[in-house]
Parts: sequence; structure tokens; C-alpha cells
Amino acid sequence: APSGERGSSWPGTGCYPRYTREEVGRHRSPRDRVWVTHGTEVFDVTDFVELHPGGAEKLMLAAGGALEPFWALYAVHNQPHVLELLREYKVGELSPEEGAPAPADSQDPFAGDPPRHPGLRVNSQKPFNAEPPAELLGERFLTPNELFFTRNHLPVPAVDPGTYRLRVEGPGGRGVSLSLAELRSRFPKHEVTATLQCAGNRRTEMSRVRPVKGLAWDIGAIGTARWGGARLRDVLLAAGFEPEREGEWHVCFEGLDADAGGAPYGASIPYGRAVSPAAEVLLAYEMNGQELPRDHGFPLRVVVPGVVGARSVKWLARVAVSPAESPSHWQRNDYKGFSPCVDWDTVDFSAAPAIQELPVQSAITQPRPGAAVPAGELTVKGYAWSGGGREVVRVDVSLDGGRTWRVARLLGERPVPGRAWAWALWEVTAPVAAGAELEIVCKAVDGSYNVQPDSVAPIWNLRGVLSNAWHRVRVTVTR
Amino acid sequence: APSGERGSSWPGTGCYPRYTREEVGRHRSPRDRVWVTHGTEVFDVTDFVELHPGGAEKLMLAAGGALEPFWALYAVHNQPHVLELLREYKVGELSPEEGAPAPADSQDPFAGDPPRHPGLRVNSQKPFNAEPPAELLGERFLTPNELFFTRNHLPVPAVDPGTYRLRVEGPGGRGVSLSLAELRSRFPKHEVTATLQCAGNRRTEMSRVRPVKGLAWDIGAIGTARWGGARLRDVLLAAGFEPEREGEWHVCFEGLDADAGGAPYGASIPYGRAVSPAAEVLLAYEMNGQELPRDHGFPLRVVVPGVVGARSVKWLARVAVSPAESPSHWQRNDYKGFSPCVDWDTVDFSAAPAIQELPVQSAITQPRPGAAVPAGELTVKGYAWSGGGREVVRVDVSLDGGRTWRVARLLGERPVPGRAWAWALWEVTAPVAAGAELEIVCKAVDGSYNVQPDSVAPIWNLRGVLSNAWHRVRVTVTR
Repeated sequence: APSGERGSSWPGTGCYPRYTREEVGRHRSPRDRVWVTHGTEVFDVTDFVELHPGGAEKLMLAAGGALEPFWALYAVHNQPHVLELLREYKVGELSPEEGAPAPADSQDPFAGDPPRHPGLRVNSQKPFNAEPPAELLGERFLTPNELFFTRNHLPVPAVDPGTYRLRVEGPGGRGVSLSLAELRSRFPKHEVTATLQCAGNRRTEMSRVRPVKGLAWDIGAIGTARWGGARLRDVLLAAGFEPEREGEWHVCFEGLDADAGGAPYGASIPYGRAVSPAAEVLLAYEMNGQELPRDHGFPLRVVVPGVVGARSVKWLARVAVSPAESPSHWQRNDYKGFSPCVDWDTVDFSAAPAIQELPVQSAITQPRPGAAVPAGELTVKGYAWSGGGREVVRVDVSLDGGRTWRVARLLGERPVPGRAWAWALWEVTAPVAAGAELEIVCKAVDGSYNVQPDSVAPIWNLRGVLSNAWHRVRVTVTR
Repeated sequence: APSGERGSSWPGTGCYPRYTREEVGRHRSPRDRVWVTHGTEVFDVTDFVELHPGGAEKLMLAAGGALEPFWALYAVHNQPHVLELLREYKVGELSPEEGAPAPADSQDPFAGDPPRHPGLRVNSQKPFNAEPPAELLGERFLTPNELFFTRNHLPVPAVDPGTYRLRVEGPGGRGVSLSLAELRSRFPKHEVTATLQCAGNRRTEMSRVRPVKGLAWDIGAIGTARWGGARLRDVLLAAGFEPEREGEWHVCFEGLDADAGGAPYGASIPYGRAVSPAAEVLLAYEMNGQELPRDHGFPLRVVVPGVVGARSVKWLARVAVSPAESPSHWQRNDYKGFSPCVDWDTVDFSAAPAIQELPVQSAITQPRPGAAVPAGELTVKGYAWSGGGREVVRVDVSLDGGRTWRVARLLGERPVPGRAWAWALWEVTAPVAAGAELEIVCKAVDGSYNVQPDSVAPIWNLRGVLSNAWHRVRVTVTR
């Protein structure tokens, strides 16, 4: 008999049935009952889901698993009355043998990957690629590190910070090698709040037009953090490079993550951006005030504000000034945009420039597609961002598929024009009538008055990158 | 009886009827016969129109008027056999009294405006606003001065270059006043090939969605010239201003053109752009190797590469560094973009940023809308450009309204990335079948992978600016 049938509780007796984590994990929907754990206790919160002050959908993110990772992000839960309330729903205890980690498989190159937050939506386990649920993404201007999308191309390297060295080299400079302590002490710490977005964000919408090659990202392959580190400019100047160079030069980055053949992940940016004080390119060792997490490049990563995430190389091993772009596969034969008429038989990767600055983007984080929303006032929330430091100057929202529009309220401070590295969160509230079927649409305008294209098919490309058409979410208004 | 009826010729007799220019001007179509003049001679070229090697539509631009302004642009005509060929079509002579200019009306503030090229399509005579025919626009990378679109807000000032002075002033600098000779001798001449585009280019397409306020520009309110002059940066530094400034500063420009109340045309750009060596902002006294024409700002104008034409103030009188944008109407209450939901009752001009960099743009210059094109190979030509120095990396062309695409060939050299101030001309050749109705569409992609929006209605705005949806041209393929 399934253990779930033992799931009756004896309140007041202090005597509860025992469950494994696996058993708890089977209870993830109202039909199967919604179970969660806290510490070693198991709770059936099915009847509380709709009463959850933060919304049913937020609580459902934890269904079948532990509450702690979510509560860690939402400090409001760390109060006695919350635990008291929870206790009413207790149905069991975790088995005493739970908690011991499974032994690592030494043959698996990914066996050393770090633990991850259970709230992440995993697109690929090995290498690990995951995004936060959209409804959490739009809630906070700074994305919590644990929920920040992770885009790994290879296993996460295990780096000993004590022996770690960064090499900086290339023609025109002195080859130098820097320890973490030297990077921290010899260069002023510079902080930048910047959004990073994967080139493949919103790829699922493109796949619906025609299949593409790539991970099935929803709208969450984007996040915003306060990054702290040394300015790349300062490090390059200290290594003897000039602040201006004639001709075409690039700054190439190599990570410590390498494929089976030993080839590291790599990317490059134009020299001008690397040395520009205004571009604020960082060699970051901090993310939102914490040490860089392993999944985000510990102990050191590049952060190129306003530029596709693929150039912000993690686990940075080497910075090399070069007359050519990085020879890496990911610079030369990936992360480029093509016409919808180009297929895998005709594609010529040398014919398109490597993606650097990204186009203007926006998406709706609330409500979610297919949601049933109550009649009355509907609040629509989302994010908007543009590459190159171009600020978001307006977001238009439609509830009728793009026929009529209203202007969303941009939240937070106006950024410095030209250095708007972080997204804008936005919201708009509108009356909605019971029974209506809404097609909610958003489109953003940036400081150069660039706009998002109306539809996906004309920007379709074989790699499914640069998916920035109007975002559309269909919902039903309940009676 | 109309003088046209005297229009029979007596070849070989050397004796021709006399016509006024007005009479010639009535012959502008095959139905009314197509007449042109050269020197004092009048020709009926109706039967030659279809034989014209440069295309019938090019010759029709001169119908009813003089050939010389067009021949001046197309040197191929200046050969003896061309005149010989023309002589076969001679039908008359201009009346001896023709040629004396009409007396200027001293009450008319526009009476002092310069003469203009008859090939221009005039959108407004006073102030003068005109654009070249699209089929000429796409022919040359550098737009001839005589055909460069003219966007005047006020009468053209008559400036004595001998007494002209430019004032440069504002907090943080020494007030200086510079003669033209000083501008030429004290500062190195810098040359930039840059495209200027009016914010209202392609407004007619927007008006078809819903009426807008503004001049009815077709696709010709854009042009490219080689500008020569002093760098604004050099002049500002010479006037004591620092190359970097903390906080928000602007550089304001005032023209010598003024309204009835004495208020000059004015505009401003951010200080950072004005002093950036990479931005290459000019105080230009040359256009395509010639002295600046009166309609384009003689003797001195601003040229801000990558930025809407409205900031490239002509007949420049004053440069003023200021903590605020130009107080000019055209900076504060015009040349801004709004949501389609904003109308003249609800518009708040302070809510939108002044247009500076323009979004990615492209248009088809050949064939023209409604054309009948021969079956076989069709060549489609056009221009593409983006603001902020972002290069055009691709132009997609569709012959079926956007269902399928092919990639156009970009003509000319690849620009320096980030300093692509000039447009790209492009062309694509495709087989077309007799009897087909084609909807030709073009859309460009810039170096930040921004694209043009699919349709006009969602970017409609009450002033009809920033009209950069896909350009669509319908033609018929003849059998």
C-alpha cells in the first residue's frame, strides 16, 4: 500500500507516521494533496493553499518539498505565528534515515556540482541550466542569488580560492598573474547593478513557430544583481595596456570550465568596451553582497553590463588582449542572429556578428499563462530591459491582444541615461469584467526609441536566440 | 486658344514657336505631352520617355521644367551625343522675356529663401520642407546637396559670413566668440560621413492609420553627406570646458532662424555626447566638399551623428553649456515619442524623453509603390540605417508580405562597429513571375540586434514621429 495512505494524523498525541522525502514529493497537487516539509516535520497544506497570503501559486512552488529555501527568500515567514499556523497541518515526520546525502558518483563529471534551490525550473540537469518561476522573478528588483538563472555550458569547476590565480596577458601588456587577495586589495571595489540575460531567454516562444536548437527557456533566463569587484579597465591598465588602441582589438576571456577535450568556455568583447570607464565592465567576486556562488562563477567572473550573458565568463581563468575575437565555439559559431530563411544547411556563422548588446525586451511575470483571474481590478506585472545601457522609457500593455494600449508604471528610480544596466520592473492595473478572455500583451521602448517586434515568426532563427517579440499571456476572468 | 496648340515644329527651318515657362509646365504627362527645356530650347520628349536609358520615371522627374538641375547630378548627360539626340525632339524656344526673376516680396519673411532644385518633392513651401524622390535617394551613397531633404522650421536667415560670429558660453567655460576664419584656422578640420534623418520620415504611413500632426514626409526625409568642420569637442575644450563633468549637463544650440517673436530654433544634446571624441559631433561648414548650402545651415551647423536631425541645429549662432536641456519648444514639447493611447487631450510632453538616437530603420527606394515591373529578375533597392552608430548588420526582404524572406546584399564597406554613422544601401534580386501581385517588405537589423516592428498601428503616435515599421511596397508584375 502506498505510504500516503498512512497519512492520517493524530493531533495532540505527538505520534506521527514517518515518510521519506520521495513519498512527500508525490504530493504536489490538490488532487494528490499538497505536502511540504519544515525541519523534519511533514505538513499537508492542501486546505491552506488558497488561504496563503502570498498567493496560492507561490506556495505551490514548494509543493512536495522543503519550505526552508523559499522562506529564506521571504523573511516574513520567520515569525512564531507562522510556525504555529503550520503546525495545524502536520501529518507526519521525515524518516530518521532522510538527510544523508547520496554518495557522489566519481565517474560523473557533474558529480561535483553544487546543490541548487528546489524552486528553480530545471531545463537541463547536466550541464545545469535552470530559471526561477516567472511569478517570483518579477517580485524583486534584485534577483536572489539562489533564484538567479543558471546557464552552465559544462560542469562547475571546483576552485580553491587560496591557490586561484587570474592571468592577464596579450601583446602590448605585461603578463601578470593575480591572486584573489591581490584583486581585492590592489584595485578599488566597484559595484554595478546590472541585469544579465541569456541570448536564449524566451526561446520556448520561438520553438512554437518552428523547432530550434537550444534549451527551452521560458521568460526567466534573466536576472538582476548588484555585482562587486575590480573594474576590468583598472586591471588592464595595471597590466600595462593603454586606455585607447588603434585598430581592431578584443579582450578574450577563458573560464576554468572545460569540456572533455580540455577546451575551456570562452568569449570576448571589443577592447573599447573593456577599457571604457563608462561601460563599467567588472571582474566580479561578489553578487548581491555575498561571495559569488559556485553556479555563478566562484571565485571570479566577468560581468559585462548591457551585453548578452554569454560574454560574462564565469570561473574566469584568463584575460587575453587579442587582435581577433575569442576563438571559442561560443563566440564564433554560436550566439549569433540569422534571418528566418537561414537553416542548418545554409548557415554561415562568419556572416553574422557575435551578439554583444541585446535588443529591447520585456515580459509579463504576472498573471501566468492560463491563469483564472478574479473580476474587478487586474494587476499585470513584468520586467523590461534593453542592452547597451539604454534605459527603458516606456512599457505599453494591452489586454486585447494589441488593439488598444495603456502605459505601465515603471517602478524604482530613473537610471542615469546611457548607463541603465538594470531592468525596470513595471505594473499596470486595469478593470476586467467577469467572463472575459484576455490576451495580455506588453512591449517596451528604450532610450533610442527602439521597440519590440510584434510577432515571433519574422525574427525566428535556427538557434532560437534574441526572442524579443511582444510577450503575450492569455488568461480568463472568473465570474 | 491655348498656346500649346501652336506646338507644331518646323524641323530644319530653324524657326520655332515661343513658349513661356508656365506653358511648358503644363506638359507633364504622356496625355498632356511631356515637355522639358534645356537652355532656351523646348523639347517634347513624350516619345523618348520609355527609351530613356536611366528609366522613364527618372526622366519624368524633369517633366514640365528644365533638364539642367538633373543633368548636373547625372554627369553622363554632358556629352555631345545626348544633346544631338535631344535636338530631334525640339518643339520650340522659350520666350525672350523668360529668365528674369520675379521681384521679391519684401513683406514675405520667406522672400529671402534660396532657390531650390525642381526635383524636390515639396511638403511645405513656407517654411520650406522638401525631400528627394525615393528613386533618386537610393541611387547614391552620398546624397547630392541639391537633393538632400530640407527641413526648415522658419525662414532661411541671410548670414554675412564676413561678420558672422559663433558664441560659446555657459558655466565652467570662458565665453568665447569665434569668426568663421577662426573656426577654420584654430581647429583641425574633421570629416564625418553621416546620415541625417528627420524624426518625421515616413510619417505618411502613420497618417494612414490615424491622422497625425506634421508634414507629410514620404521615405525621403533622410540623406547622407560627408560633413566637414571643427569638432564640437575641440571648440568646447578651447572654451575652457572640461572633457568630463559630474552630474547632468547639456549642450544647447541656438540657430539664427527665429520666429516672428524673435525666438530662435533650438535644441540640445547631452554633454557626454558633445565632448566624446568617439561621438564625432561637428560644427560643420562643409557638406560633400562644398560650402554648406543656405538651406542646410550656411555658414555653420551642428551635425550630431547617429541622432535625430532636429538636434543638428542649422545657422548656428550659439552653443551654451547648461544644467538643463534646451528650453526650446522643439526640445521640450516636440520630437518626443508617445504610446498610441496618448492623444492631444492627454499628452504630457514632460513624460517622454526628447528623441536623441533614432531606432533602426529601412525603406525600399525601388521599385516604387504601384509600379508595374517586368517579369523575370526583379531588383529591389533601398536604404537601412540605425541611430547611435549601430551598424546595419542585415536587411531581410520579402516579396510575399513577410511570409518568406531573403537576405539583401549590403553595398559598400563595412563601417567601424559602433561608429556606423552612415546608412547602408542594399539590394536584392529575385525571380518574379508574370501576373504576380507582390507585396515587397524590408526590415533591417542593427548591431544590437534591434529590429523594426512589423506594423505601424502599435507605434502610432500623435506627432507621427519614429515611423520605422517594416516598409511595404505593392507592385504588379507585367506579363
